[in-house]
Amino acid sequence: MNGAQALIDTLYKAGVRVCFANPGTSEMQLVAAIDKHPEMRGVLGLFEGVVTGAADGYGRMADAPAATLLHLGPGFANGAANLHNARRAHAPVVNIVGDHADYHREYDAPLTSDLEGAARPFSNWVKTSASADALAGDGAQAVAEAMRYPGAIATLIAPANFAWEDAKGAAEPQRPQAAPQADAALIEKAAAALKSGKAAALFLGGMALREDALEEAGRISEATGARIICETFAARLQRGEGRVPVERLPYFGEMAAEFLSGFSSVVFIGAKPPVAFFAYPGKPGRLSPEDAEIFEVADARTDALSALRALADALNAPKTHSKRQPHFVPPPMSGKLEPAGVAAALAELSPEDAIIIDEAATAGLAMFPMTAGMKRHDWLMLTGGSIGFGLPAGVGAAIARPDRKVICLQADGSAMYTVQALWTMAREKLDITTVIFNNASYAILNIELARVGAGNPGPKALSLLDLSNPMIDWVEISNGMGVPGVRATTAESFRDALKEALEARGPRLVEADLRP
Amino acid sequence: MNGAQALIDTLYKAGVRVCFANPGTSEMQLVAAIDKHPEMRGVLGLFEGVVTGAADGYGRMADAPAATLLHLGPGFANGAANLHNARRAHAPVVNIVGDHADYHREYDAPLTSDLEGAARPFSNWVKTSASADALAGDGAQAVAEAMRYPGAIATLIAPANFAWEDAKGAAEPQRPQAAPQADAALIEKAAAALKSGKAAALFLGGMALREDALEEAGRISEATGARIICETFAARLQRGEGRVPVERLPYFGEMAAEFLSGFSSVVFIGAKPPVAFFAYPGKPGRLSPEDAEIFEVADARTDALSALRALADALNAPKTHSKRQPHFVPPPMSGKLEPAGVAAALAELSPEDAIIIDEAATAGLAMFPMTAGMKRHDWLMLTGGSIGFGLPAGVGAAIARPDRKVICLQADGSAMYTVQALWTMAREKLDITTVIFNNASYAILNIELARVGAGNPGPKALSLLDLSNPMIDWVEISNGMGVPGVRATTAESFRDALKEALEARGPRLVEADLRP
Repeated sequence: MNGAQALIDTLYKAGVRVCFANPGTSEMQLVAAIDKHPEMRGVLGLFEGVVTGAADGYGRMADAPAATLLHLGPGFANGAANLHNARRAHAPVVNIVGDHADYHREYDAPLTSDLEGAARPFSNWVKTSASADALAGDGAQAVAEAMRYPGAIATLIAPANFAWEDAKGAAEPQRPQAAPQADAALIEKAAAALKSGKAAALFLGGMALREDALEEAGRISEATGARIICETFAARLQRGEGRVPVERLPYFGEMAAEFLSGFSSVVFIGAKPPVAFFAYPGKPGRLSPEDAEIFEVADARTDALSALRALADALNAPKTHSKRQPHFVPPPMSGKLEPAGVAAALAELSPEDAIIIDEAATAGLAMFPMTAGMKRHDWLMLTGGSIGFGLPAGVGAAIARPDRKVICLQADGSAMYTVQALWTMAREKLDITTVIFNNASYAILNIELARVGAGNPGPKALSLLDLSNPMIDWVEISNGMGVPGVRATTAESFRDALKEALEARGPRLVEADLRP
Repeated sequence: MNGAQALIDTLYKAGVRVCFANPGTSEMQLVAAIDKHPEMRGVLGLFEGVVTGAADGYGRMADAPAATLLHLGPGFANGAANLHNARRAHAPVVNIVGDHADYHREYDAPLTSDLEGAARPFSNWVKTSASADALAGDGAQAVAEAMRYPGAIATLIAPANFAWEDAKGAAEPQRPQAAPQADAALIEKAAAALKSGKAAALFLGGMALREDALEEAGRISEATGARIICETFAARLQRGEGRVPVERLPYFGEMAAEFLSGFSSVVFIGAKPPVAFFAYPGKPGRLSPEDAEIFEVADARTDALSALRALADALNAPKTHSKRQPHFVPPPMSGKLEPAGVAAALAELSPEDAIIIDEAATAGLAMFPMTAGMKRHDWLMLTGGSIGFGLPAGVGAAIARPDRKVICLQADGSAMYTVQALWTMAREKLDITTVIFNNASYAILNIELARVGAGNPGPKALSLLDLSNPMIDWVEISNGMGVPGVRATTAESFRDALKEALEARGPRLVEADLRP
């Protein structure tokens, strides 16, 4: 058994079932080890941003890490942006990055770079294995690090010669560090504030947005009248008909500050107090009301379900509650396709337990409120702000949950970043419907240009935000990568196209033509 | 005048004429400053790998830096792989990376990361500006650092508030550090070895492969019989009819070692002694013959033209020489399209002073030898081994030299990495003909799999190297991004398609279908 085989065996023993890969020469032994392992699935992405974004989507839906297989420093860097998103989502990911043989590094061959340095800003844990025998133990540690509640980015660098040299064998799985528990005294204080009768909010993020945790939040709201709010960009929100409804903090800082301004106390569980996404001249950075009592009961790495349950119990909240989202679907639209028409069709047609991947940006603002009452579903968002997340995350989610329909709501500019993901959807015959919101623009930046005080832009500035020259033909691109595509320009034709795509099994793309 | 305007003015004064950009909110003031500057050209890329690869191609052809405009840590990371290639090419590039306002960093907003840490492994110089007033001076320094002979990657991080705050004005250009000169005593020693009559080679790289430097190499060869060899992956080789012909070191280490084994002395100018691209079990790392005399006269950062001229003069070499490549074009091919058919058509049809961007990988092995005698041209190669270089570099080369035809020889797997470059070709109406070598495979990896001792692969391993399921339809993808595309399956139809593409002005794509 060589080091590569010992490592792949170890990952499997520790629960890793899928390896998203774009390998190169330094990973060939690892490819061969995957090949020999009867139950480790290898999934090829045609760019590393697809590989790491898929691992993010997988991790969020499986609550267990997939592995990635990446090629040296540049290969890692190509995947870094989606690792940034995964890190902000606290998703579990194990990166295996091949490096030159350790004795080859001194030659400074063309692909040599500071791989550890490249990995560190986008990982929670980085280690370079020191020998063939060390690879397996390091792999077990990487999985345990990735499973640090609720998830983390663990990057293991595997020099090529350790992969081909003899090794003792697989290592036993390591137990991940237990999730810290919220401070009991702080829970008591928060409970006292919630009982005071003043306007209060439960501000939730991370694992506090899963169905079981939200049930506890519903008890608390029932007992105290506290409103339930979630962070603007959540890793995975379980919502829809019958679940505990959650209000979402607005994106723009001044709207968010206004939204929160009425509260006398805010209790944070699974989230930290919100800050503006960017700084703007003369606008606030911290968004919580200055005069409110702030209770940071549990951050993203503290057990959210236990914290919410303890808080509900401290309040003597009833075991059952009435905070359930009723069924609601907006009426169908007609005429020229607008974002609301997309939302109405989505709300009407989404099957139960759909997984919605939301990277629709400005064009998608209508999606979230209009779908609140549709059949129950998971809603995954762009946690780190680095675009190119949606299509790859759809790949990973579909592989984690092959029994469920994945729907990617995808802005055009962001879709182009990792457009290669369509090919993997076709190859793996994944049950994904992608909706491209084609407004032929980085529309958000037209708003941001004014907000940073750079208004009254001329043609050169506008051209740097514009995708209309030439028009991108998403149907041709999709077909070219093996995913059947269709374009819709009216609300009626969009609804028909979406219905057909959702009823099919396998990848489909619907271009929603939103141009004026 | 704000900091952004002072910076853009400074870049212009220092000779920067083009900014390849994919901006976000933190760069909006810089976009507005480009907008207001009458002569700074802004070119949008739909992914940062396009932006940085374009800057590489531009820098190689202009011998002056373009600027890039990148968005925070993830935006930089998306561009890092092509910066790795540019760094290995010693191409001049100035990266301007927007960061959060300095007072906003403490909030750890979603897009926050260790930006300096991310930039360092892929830059020769990194600086974060400390104030609005500092931006202009830092910009002048960045250009000077980028122009350190023959070129370097300078990354300037611009916090958003310094861009919008008032600044004193533009800074004066700074003089780049002068190129070091080769050691005169070492030149004398090398000359003595070359005069000894034993088998000798001039091993050239970097700036030693430009026409003027090769003229000096021709004199040396005329006087001594030394063979002229170039590194396997050169930034820019000027070759073709009438120029001094150069032999290229083979890619595979054992072939390279064999190629060099007959020489008693090797003189390196613009290059360092070659090493294997990767380590393989039981194969050599250093490729120069162990018993040869090695003269490292000038590395890539030492003035190559002066070193060659001094060496020629030390040899009392004649002012003129006979080492000129005669015109040669292979006969046209017919029948099923093979790589040789592509090469024959290219050699026949390339116009004078074409710029060839070579990322054709295995399918392109025939290109270089078969085109040696075609009309004079520049040949740009993948210096850093990080795939996804070719199409973006074509964009940059075409913008640097709008008077010349650019021809991208592009492997399919590598093309997919930065396929978004096609859109910029269409938008900017660049005079680029792209040839896609479609063998539906990461073919090089099928070779490497065996070479690292992981032979006899099963279906899972092969599937991770395979691009045939589904087939990528390059014509549809190209059309979808606005570049007219056509597919050729025979040598005759390929020649016709290439002829039509080269005779047109503007972007075209020809898919060379090389599948068996």
